[in-house]
Order: sequence, then structure tokens, then C-alpha cells
Amino acid sequence: MLRGILPLAAIAALGLFDPEAANAEQVALTSTVSVKNELKYLLYTPDGYATSTESYPLVIWLHGGDQGGSDIDKVKSSGIPKLIEDGKKFPFLVFSPQNPSEELLYPIEKVDAALEEVASTYRVDRSRIYVIGFSRGGFGAWALAEQFPDKFAAIVPIAGGGNRHYLNRTNEKAAFWVFHGSNDGVIPLSDSVVLYERLKALDRNARLTVLEGVDHSGVEWATLNDAELWDWLLKQRLEGAPQ
Amino acid sequence: MLRGILPLAAIAALGLFDPEAANAEQVALTSTVSVKNELKYLLYTPDGYATSTESYPLVIWLHGGDQGGSDIDKVKSSGIPKLIEDGKKFPFLVFSPQNPSEELLYPIEKVDAALEEVASTYRVDRSRIYVIGFSRGGFGAWALAEQFPDKFAAIVPIAGGGNRHYLNRTNEKAAFWVFHGSNDGVIPLSDSVVLYERLKALDRNARLTVLEGVDHSGVEWATLNDAELWDWLLKQRLEGAPQ
Repeated sequence: MLRGILPLAAIAALGLFDPEAANAEQVALTSTVSVKNELKYLLYTPDGYATSTESYPLVIWLHGGDQGGSDIDKVKSSGIPKLIEDGKKFPFLVFSPQNPSEELLYPIEKVDAALEEVASTYRVDRSRIYVIGFSRGGFGAWALAEQFPDKFAAIVPIAGGGNRHYLNRTNEKAAFWVFHGSNDGVIPLSDSVVLYERLKALDRNARLTVLEGVDHSGVEWATLNDAELWDWLLKQRLEGAPQ
Repeated sequence: MLRGILPLAAIAALGLFDPEAANAEQVALTSTVSVKNELKYLLYTPDGYATSTESYPLVIWLHGGDQGGSDIDKVKSSGIPKLIEDGKKFPFLVFSPQNPSEELLYPIEKVDAALEEVASTYRVDRSRIYVIGFSRGGFGAWALAEQFPDKFAAIVPIAGGGNRHYLNRTNEKAAFWVFHGSNDGVIPLSDSVVLYERLKALDRNARLTVLEGVDHSGVEWATLNDAELWDWLLKQRLEGAPQ
């Protein structure tokens, strides 16, 4: 017999206690406890943002493993935030969450919640949200593409890896550009190749750039210094994206 | 120059507006918006639970893709919840969250938050929390082992797959028993083999059972009807688990 916990207590209170009530039961419940978020991030706003009324594209930058933890300044030491610190200008917003763990993968539901907060606080063009990630951030980029498929116009995983079985859940309208070095001794090139080939089999808009002779640490800068990446990225647009 | 948004507004309000203030800036912020949870689940309490004061082991059951969605009764149609509905008794609690998506992977941070709610509401032996998952739930089991390594004494992925690069983040004290059918045409056996071999290379307590001639749908029942699994499972204990 299956009974809820409260009805059982009520029966006992009424003196109608049934010896079977101590027996096994399987009940349906709902958890409404929230997942707390305390995600640190850097936010870059471009020249002219403060004085305009326009919406801007937004790039999510997911750093590699070395910048995880609680010291947000570490995030400035690599990738897009480092380029910005060194004076580079971009014509889009950059949202750079810090993985709170130094060891584990990104908590992507928290990253998504923080992204929603940023996208509703700043003037973001919802049809032009892009994710770029390196290494552990590359795994995060693949995971975001699979788990929140309706949000990203383009996904750029650099030296990452992921779950090929769920690539069929990614958005048919999204564009993928995958980068990997041929001499990567940390995450093998084959990880990107498997995912890329699966995307092509699914008839997705996907391209793969293999940087010959480049190792794991080299591929991050080689990719971000490729001017063609930025030209390509800003042309991507997700028609019908949620506003 | 880097400035926070509020100081900039304050400067403007004071009439000290600096033309440079409209320039690009990169600021550090923190997102405190919570991730809402409305995770449905089944909870099984064993014979004697209601009248005892003991703590019990807890099994997390992660169903395969077919039971996802919002109809909680679907979760009763497979796996451990189905065995319970059919009258089988277990000497442990069973927490069976429903994947709210019919297509995507489990939202594992929400699953973890609901697990914490259950473990603090019921009398759960924290050193004996186990996760068993089939197919998409097998992917969930591997993901939980990697992302919440301090919680599970044993992990049993059935016909799943996952991320071999982060297996070094799993708990050295946890035990793994991996099941897969040799005739699986949905998730290939090699997915489990790769993960198992990586665990062995990491010197983890891991075993692999390949069910000869068994296909994807057959491996769920073959595993759950293996009496040795339950004997083995209940012996696993995570010393020093958080209470």
C-alpha cells in the first residue's frame, strides 16, 4: 500500500493506526529548494555602451582550469579578459564567469542563471549570444550548447571535449567553430574531431580548425588572435531567439 | 581606465563627468540570483523506517530518457521504482528524481540540491549514499561522481557514458561498478570500457560487467535483477563522509 507521509500521520492522530502503515511506501514529492548562486564574474562593456541605447552582442568567456577558485583577478590573467586588460577593444559585451572550483567542471546551471541575470540587466541582443571556452571552458562550451540549446548563436570550443551522444540536442540553427592543436598532450585532438564529425553527421553548421604543431597551452592564444574568428562570430545570429 | 558602474554614475551626478567614462571597462561582479528548483521525485521508505530511529542507506535512481518530463507516474514505469511498484522490498531509501527534460541531460546541480533536502529531511546514513543510473541516468551517475565527489560511496552506471578527462576528480574512496550490454546499439559498450579503464589507471575501486548478447533496453533489468549488485552495494561505505 502506498500512502503519503502526512495522511499517515493524520491516520495515527485519529487513533485509526494501521499496522501496515509502518510498511514500505513510495510517494511522489517535489523539491522546491533553490540552488544558491555566488558566482563571480568579469563584465566588459565596450566603448560607447554607456552613452548608447543600442543592444550589443555578448560573448561568454569560459576560462581554463588554472583560473578557477575565488580570486577573480586570476580570470584577468588569460583569454579574452587578459586581452582586454592589455588594451584590446571589442565591440561586444564579455561575460566571464569564474569556475568556483579549481578542479571540477563548471556548474553550468549556475552559469546559465548568472547569464540570464546579466542579459536582463544589460542591453544584450539575445539573438547574438556566443560562448567561447578553452580547455575546461571548452568542455563548458560543449555542455552549454547541449544543455541550453536555445540560447547561443555560436559556440567556439577550444581544446575541449564533451558528450557526443547529446549533440543531437543542440540547436540546428547554431554555428560551431571548433579549435584544437595537433600537438595537444592534455586533451587529445581526437576529442574535438569526434564531436565535430558528429555535428557534421547531424548536418549542423560546423567547422574545425586544427592548428598544426600547436600544443594545449598554445591553442588558446592562437585562436583568440585569429582575426577571422571575430569577423565570423559577429555575423552569427540566432533568428527567433527568446527575447 | 577601469571603473565600477555605480561610481561612474556618482561621478556623473556630481557634475564631474569625465569623457573617458564612456570608454570600455571590465568590472568584477558577483551573481547572487538563485537557480529555482521544482524537481519532482519519488521517495521510497523501507519497511520499519516509520517506527525506527535508525539512519538508512539511500540509493539515488536516475531513470533513462523515456521517463523524463513532468508526469511523475512515468518514473514508476521503469527501474527501481517499477520494482517497488511490483512489490519488491529494499532495505534502503530510494530517491528517484525525474529529469524535467524529455531530451536533455539531468540538471545535476538541481538534483544535488534536492538530494541535500532529502538527506536532511529523512534519516539518511551519509556514509552510504549510492547512485545508480541507466542510459541518460548513467550519464547522470558519471556526472554526479565527477561533480560531487565527496557524497557517494558507490556509483553504478548502466549503459551510460561520460567524461573520462575528469575522472581523476572522483573520490579515491568511492567504489564503481559499471554495467553494459555487448549488443548495445544506442550507447556503445566502448563508452563504458573507456571510462572503466581510466578508473583502473587511476587505481580506483572499479569493476566492469559486460552482459554478453544484451542490448540497450535489456541491460537495465538484467542489472537490477542481479542479487550480487545489492549485496555488494550495501557493503560500500564512504568513511569520513560529511554528516
